[in-house]
Amino acid sequence: MAKNLTPRGEDYSRWYNDLVLQSQLADYAPVKGCMVIRPWGYAIWEKMQQGLDGMFKATGHVNAYFPLFIPESFMKKEAQHVEGFAPECAVVTHGGGKELEEPLYIRPTSETIIYFMFAKWIQSWRDLPLLMNQWCNVVRWEMRTRLFLRTTEFLWQEGHTAHATEAEAQVETLKMLGVYHRFATEWMAIDPVRGLKTDAEKFAGAVRTYCIEAMMQDGKALQAGTSHMLGQNFARAFDVKFQAQDGGMQHVWNTSWGLSTRMIGALVMAHSDDDGLVLPPRLAPIQVGAVPIWRKDEEKAGVLAAMERVEAALQGKVALSVDRREELSPGWKFNEMELKGIPLRLELGPRDVAAGQVMSVTRLGRKKEAIPIDRLGERVPEILDAIQAELLERNRTLHRERTFSIDDYAEFKERIEGGGFFSAGWCGKPECEAKVKEETKATIRCIPLDAVEEAGSCLRCDGASTRRVLFARAY
Amino acid sequence: MAKNLTPRGEDYSRWYNDLVLQSQLADYAPVKGCMVIRPWGYAIWEKMQQGLDGMFKATGHVNAYFPLFIPESFMKKEAQHVEGFAPECAVVTHGGGKELEEPLYIRPTSETIIYFMFAKWIQSWRDLPLLMNQWCNVVRWEMRTRLFLRTTEFLWQEGHTAHATEAEAQVETLKMLGVYHRFATEWMAIDPVRGLKTDAEKFAGAVRTYCIEAMMQDGKALQAGTSHMLGQNFARAFDVKFQAQDGGMQHVWNTSWGLSTRMIGALVMAHSDDDGLVLPPRLAPIQVGAVPIWRKDEEKAGVLAAMERVEAALQGKVALSVDRREELSPGWKFNEMELKGIPLRLELGPRDVAAGQVMSVTRLGRKKEAIPIDRLGERVPEILDAIQAELLERNRTLHRERTFSIDDYAEFKERIEGGGFFSAGWCGKPECEAKVKEETKATIRCIPLDAVEEAGSCLRCDGASTRRVLFARAY
Repeated sequence: MAKNLTPRGEDYSRWYNDLVLQSQLADYAPVKGCMVIRPWGYAIWEKMQQGLDGMFKATGHVNAYFPLFIPESFMKKEAQHVEGFAPECAVVTHGGGKELEEPLYIRPTSETIIYFMFAKWIQSWRDLPLLMNQWCNVVRWEMRTRLFLRTTEFLWQEGHTAHATEAEAQVETLKMLGVYHRFATEWMAIDPVRGLKTDAEKFAGAVRTYCIEAMMQDGKALQAGTSHMLGQNFARAFDVKFQAQDGGMQHVWNTSWGLSTRMIGALVMAHSDDDGLVLPPRLAPIQVGAVPIWRKDEEKAGVLAAMERVEAALQGKVALSVDRREELSPGWKFNEMELKGIPLRLELGPRDVAAGQVMSVTRLGRKKEAIPIDRLGERVPEILDAIQAELLERNRTLHRERTFSIDDYAEFKERIEGGGFFSAGWCGKPECEAKVKEETKATIRCIPLDAVEEAGSCLRCDGASTRRVLFARAY
Repeated sequence: MAKNLTPRGEDYSRWYNDLVLQSQLADYAPVKGCMVIRPWGYAIWEKMQQGLDGMFKATGHVNAYFPLFIPESFMKKEAQHVEGFAPECAVVTHGGGKELEEPLYIRPTSETIIYFMFAKWIQSWRDLPLLMNQWCNVVRWEMRTRLFLRTTEFLWQEGHTAHATEAEAQVETLKMLGVYHRFATEWMAIDPVRGLKTDAEKFAGAVRTYCIEAMMQDGKALQAGTSHMLGQNFARAFDVKFQAQDGGMQHVWNTSWGLSTRMIGALVMAHSDDDGLVLPPRLAPIQVGAVPIWRKDEEKAGVLAAMERVEAALQGKVALSVDRREELSPGWKFNEMELKGIPLRLELGPRDVAAGQVMSVTRLGRKKEAIPIDRLGERVPEILDAIQAELLERNRTLHRERTFSIDDYAEFKERIEGGGFFSAGWCGKPECEAKVKEETKATIRCIPLDAVEEAGSCLRCDGASTRRVLFARAY
């Protein structure tokens, strides 16, 4: 397979598009702003679902499924919510050949319809907490779209919970932010910053929005999951009440949190290179790709027999795929495996057969190692673990090397061009935040959870600042 | 928990609705014809997905995801298809606050958009067969809806394949019908009839539609999965061509096949009773429900300690849930477990502790058996297997006892009222088929695959018939 990727250094944005298309993660759909998630991309999404779903269930959440359609009147019940979402909705006006009496919005997110149902199901404090999640598609009418990062339709999970007290809801909001952070580090090999969104950037209808912000290789930020403390905003709008232990009727406290197929884009941008995808082993649909190699016909039987021993040695231990196609050369197969980001390649030729070994080559760093077939079952999982750890460490190093403390606005304006996260003072005024965005295209990604009290001055207006926030350009 | 189900004998249809709502499989949504799949129903769907997805992957299929939206012009490309589906579509006319230039149909099924993409991806015979599946939601604007059985939006999987030859496509069509049949028997404990649909009942756009038809407890039929041989109909409409090995350009041959959340309704109707759901162990989210029982405070510690031994004994072997809630009585818990269809209940009281045993009670038939705690790990899986087998056998018996060979139309008209499948001659004319439907509400469910050549006469017109077909009323 001949690769034809624009190098990152030449045009990062074109490199990304080339790579997503050529590695067959996704393709453009014949519908404006929509994409097709191809099998290789979807298999990664299945792995992500597996990882997250396990964590959701381990923390007591159950899955359910709510309707795609949201009556217009529902959208309008929570004032901030309708203002934020209605303008970007797709609207069904006809069904079964007739015009509908009330237009139906395709869900852009499901707070409204879910909390309507919660009101039916919740009567007393015994019904709380109610901890639900759904895996589904949502639609947001985006003007400028990009494969995975911003598409009109996307797949995601949205968690929705109801609690008896504000404190419990706050604990849940942070717990799920923690789950996202753990998923990012342990599965995606990305260590994002945890923080609080400013009011300008929070979810429409939330009291507070927490996020994880990951750094891509070009130093730009990518919001990789959000967890919202909704307070009683939706509970009031949909009259979700419960009888408290002391007998009185109270509104519940809600949280919601979501993570989407956008993460596949984050995975690509965080780890991949000019040769193709680099996938962390825990999310790679195929972890090990093996290629049998022979020149002469008489070598074939021996090589294929040894390959069966390789398969037996790795059976049930790693996701192995043996590429036995005879019409393609080994070099073509190596290229394809690199493009697809398969973490480890095993080459097995006649000389390896004679030595009872295979030659392993890592996708990351092309590290070679001869491994005795007898030791594969032990050694290959070790190598995969090491790759997973190395990727995470590399992302941490990137964060460390490209996060800067800055106090001078002129200097900031210059350096933001080169990417990176900039830790700076902020007076707390939305006007300063908006001006910085207008003048530099950088936004406040978050107020990091670990930000300390620190007297300083606002990056833009020199007004008093009590803690540093993170500015960056973002996807 | 007090149950309040209408008995089957009194009103089968009300019993079904009561049961779906009270067992919390689903609830009505505030959108016409839509439902909410509640956690207990969704957990069953997850089990079904697991079972089917494993079979799809084992037969070489890969998952992908295609857009929810289908441009109107796509729908119109295959003449029969648009005629069959367009009248029942939901249509998006506005997006992002503006009227769209071309209306978008919400997918009622995805042949059109998928084969458009296949045309992009398929160049040569080397790209074939292309074997794909997607799990998604679809929308069909139904006039009369019923929880699970017929809802405006439902979840399903749709397989779509492309082949180089007609013969290969035909093999695939039957292979996937076989997968559905195996899933029905091995997982759902239902043994449906395999057969071919008549032209009047086939999929809009197919050359041939195969189906599995299951018998419900009231003797009515429920179509439980369909597999379509699409011929080159869509390949011609979307110009899906490949370079054949001999160099010429040819249209591919397509198949599609689907199975939906309707199957949860089938599961309920096939097995459940006046006390609640009866779930086959392989699809039960909780297979074993255990209840610790004590009267006196001093008994509590001993019972709970023994329950921990029960948990340890069953760990990793079955899906066990221990109901330790102290505010609810054992009787209430038994009722709830029966309503939810948990296949096996384990009761553990002070006397059981003394005897080192638990009392097991099957949901099906309420068979009791004292099992030593030490033997639980062995015995419980055996009991679950026996229940699974017994349910399947019961469904087979139902099919056997309520499938009748019939030749006289007057007699048929009378007996169809009592339910059942009626094997009868048919002349092959759509008019006779339509008249029978009009006069008796029974349709030809299928021409069974195992129907033998047999000279006879048409049930309605006495014209010549060459093989018997199956008539029944259906859900």
